[in-house]
Amino acid sequence: MKSLLSQVVKHSKRFACVALISPIVCAQNVILIIGDGMDDQQITAARNYLYGASGQTILDSMPVRSAVQVLTVDNEHPEKPVYVADSANSATAMATGVTTSMGRIGTSAKTDRDLTTIIELAEDKGFKTGIVTTASITDATPAAFATHVSVRGCETPERMVQYQSHGDYVIDCEQDTQAKGGLGSISEQLAVSNVDVLLGGGMNRFNKKAENSEQTMLEQAKHHNFHVIKTLADAKDVKPIEKMMGLFAGKHLPVRLQGTDGRIAEQPEFSFLNWFHRYLGSVSIPEAMECEANPEFAADNTPNLKDMTKVALNHLNNDKGFFLMVESASIDKQSHKRNPCGSIGEAEQLFETVQVALDFAKLNTDTLILITADHGQAAQIIPHASMYNVYGVPVATPGAIARIRTPEGSIMGINYATNEFNYEEHTGVNVPLFANKNIKDKSGNDMIGGLIRQKDIFTISKMYLGL
Amino acid sequence: MKSLLSQVVKHSKRFACVALISPIVCAQNVILIIGDGMDDQQITAARNYLYGASGQTILDSMPVRSAVQVLTVDNEHPEKPVYVADSANSATAMATGVTTSMGRIGTSAKTDRDLTTIIELAEDKGFKTGIVTTASITDATPAAFATHVSVRGCETPERMVQYQSHGDYVIDCEQDTQAKGGLGSISEQLAVSNVDVLLGGGMNRFNKKAENSEQTMLEQAKHHNFHVIKTLADAKDVKPIEKMMGLFAGKHLPVRLQGTDGRIAEQPEFSFLNWFHRYLGSVSIPEAMECEANPEFAADNTPNLKDMTKVALNHLNNDKGFFLMVESASIDKQSHKRNPCGSIGEAEQLFETVQVALDFAKLNTDTLILITADHGQAAQIIPHASMYNVYGVPVATPGAIARIRTPEGSIMGINYATNEFNYEEHTGVNVPLFANKNIKDKSGNDMIGGLIRQKDIFTISKMYLGL
Repeated sequence: MKSLLSQVVKHSKRFACVALISPIVCAQNVILIIGDGMDDQQITAARNYLYGASGQTILDSMPVRSAVQVLTVDNEHPEKPVYVADSANSATAMATGVTTSMGRIGTSAKTDRDLTTIIELAEDKGFKTGIVTTASITDATPAAFATHVSVRGCETPERMVQYQSHGDYVIDCEQDTQAKGGLGSISEQLAVSNVDVLLGGGMNRFNKKAENSEQTMLEQAKHHNFHVIKTLADAKDVKPIEKMMGLFAGKHLPVRLQGTDGRIAEQPEFSFLNWFHRYLGSVSIPEAMECEANPEFAADNTPNLKDMTKVALNHLNNDKGFFLMVESASIDKQSHKRNPCGSIGEAEQLFETVQVALDFAKLNTDTLILITADHGQAAQIIPHASMYNVYGVPVATPGAIARIRTPEGSIMGINYATNEFNYEEHTGVNVPLFANKNIKDKSGNDMIGGLIRQKDIFTISKMYLGL
Repeated sequence: MKSLLSQVVKHSKRFACVALISPIVCAQNVILIIGDGMDDQQITAARNYLYGASGQTILDSMPVRSAVQVLTVDNEHPEKPVYVADSANSATAMATGVTTSMGRIGTSAKTDRDLTTIIELAEDKGFKTGIVTTASITDATPAAFATHVSVRGCETPERMVQYQSHGDYVIDCEQDTQAKGGLGSISEQLAVSNVDVLLGGGMNRFNKKAENSEQTMLEQAKHHNFHVIKTLADAKDVKPIEKMMGLFAGKHLPVRLQGTDGRIAEQPEFSFLNWFHRYLGSVSIPEAMECEANPEFAADNTPNLKDMTKVALNHLNNDKGFFLMVESASIDKQSHKRNPCGSIGEAEQLFETVQVALDFAKLNTDTLILITADHGQAAQIIPHASMYNVYGVPVATPGAIARIRTPEGSIMGINYATNEFNYEEHTGVNVPLFANKNIKDKSGNDMIGGLIRQKDIFTISKMYLGL
């Protein structure tokens, strides 16, 4: 039963925090919401589909809008920039304030030094911390906030030494094994971590034996005070002093939307004559499609990102404060797979989650909400039929296009053409950032200017929490 | 010789305008700077090349940053949105506050009504007005601020009726001919317009005979009080009561930069085996190149955009105020042609012009500077060698890639892959907007929020000038 004092503090907190007239120390909270790959093309496509070409997303009404430089360096020559990031190095920059090289999780380029994350700093100062994602919690973005390995693929013990991933691609983090004095794989590190809330997918990563142990990582987690929940409803059984872990899928959570009958972007088909000259023959572009519910999402009882976030906020809310990172991961993953409806549905999940965060911040005013993307993605909104059709020659994208019939009755063309492989590339564009307020540095200047760097997100969070 | 009073007004203006303690009516000026196709990919590419991956452009330090929704409607069914714009309809929205259909210049979708532009409104109220561009001044963006035709291609009298442009593409604005009671072609309208400054290219558009006239449009312009200058140095001879016209190229002005030996993006070459299966064989990607001066730019004594802008500001500056539109046109045109160095050089021209505008606004504080793009463009920054090369299969863009060696010693990959035609498409992404200050509406709210619509640029300009 709560003491009378704590009840008074709780009920007076909002006023006290706003007016700063009370000696009560107010909780300071940071909610960092990352849309993986959510660049302006993705936001515009989601806006067009969900709210109409003239509509607005919840991001568009945020009081602060900025842009973020996504910086990456070469691993062998860290003085040399690389112009396109991956989720590992970009999340590491946001989590640790240090620009690193692609594939690295909480470690420095070349020197492979473990970098202290904002979550580790917050824990040390008595703040609660949480990670919520629609990916496996061992995926690059969540991992970079609480673990340290040299290669993002080192998610489980069997992937640590000369692990043949796909074809010629070999993952190796031998120096990170416990045998070599390292911290072990990502899942092993998360199982023994002090993160108070871990919600997402990745059960297949945790039901394996830990290095030199008879215990699985899931058993280790329970041993380390994690209360493992099977559904969000079970969260009510988790005691405030326990940590909470929920793994709601083997790997990543299924996505909410798909194209008609699972269709994704398809390649235009040029007629035989076109092989002789590109202005001969004709071209057939893919039929228009709609976005529909992905049956797998319902079949697996997939929790919504906003509901996971509500559960996390409820468990993390305390008189000291917390740092919570929430990721809508599959905006990026579905763009890699050329599935625009998949990305749109996961952007919608992010928008809903921003509303949850804003509702929380209304009651808990000392809450800083930052929303950003980690890097650009391949998808481009292009004319659903070429602007150059007027010239009477067969023209279409050299890549794949999806033509989506929108609820407002028009057709939106989405192009994927960054490579010939099964998956699209990231892009190096600066990404948007939105916030519910600006904060001042020690000299009284706004810390969120017109353009910031990803590592500034670490500094801003640290400053806000007073770490 | 200036009167003592006007000298006092001139010298006291800055203080008077800032402090609002004087009855002197201060000049109110709007400088709208449009980077054609200058989306965030273009800005990032230019930033990486010109200032380094960690550097900043002058745009990044502007006090206000927003994003702009680029809206377009179908000509037959104006209630239906179209998700990708062209420069004609997007410039019309900014110039008139009305969303219209592709290709239209200052006219409404379907009904083909002439829409009053901000320049026409400003002229009516005694403000001076100007248009400066690196394109032909008859090109879509400049044209939409001062003329009215149904199709952007109707630049000259001979292109008005069933003009066969390219292949099957026929331009027709018969209803806009003077014979049919219309205003004539774009160049004819500009020649008799009240715009005080017209600087750019397009001489070939003006040395033709006007409809049913023995005069060329250039002669008509002179007849209508335009002092035609041959170089910027000649501007000193233009009297304050004269209008100024400078056409410094036959069509568009040459661009400042090009790739090594004129190279643009090139298609990767897949080996013979790759025809049998996309994972067989090998791929050669284009050699890296540098950006270098375009010899044509110097050979033609091409004026810089910033210098044209300085001349325009000097001629327009008056005690009442002015509206000036400045366009860096070939960020877009060079992206259509897959020439990243071309685009980067023209973005640099825009950055320099913003500095000129800011310098002017320092002395003339009641100056609102807005910088934006009219629509997105095809170019994407992608890994200069595929992220998926680790899998040991031949992968590369299905389009064309340029690999640019940057001054900081890395290689930046720029991808062009929106269609198989000679020219790339536009994209439908929302575009950035920057301003030197925000302004309030009648209710006291900031008019430049996190997301505005292109037509709001008209409203904001109108409000600022008190029109």
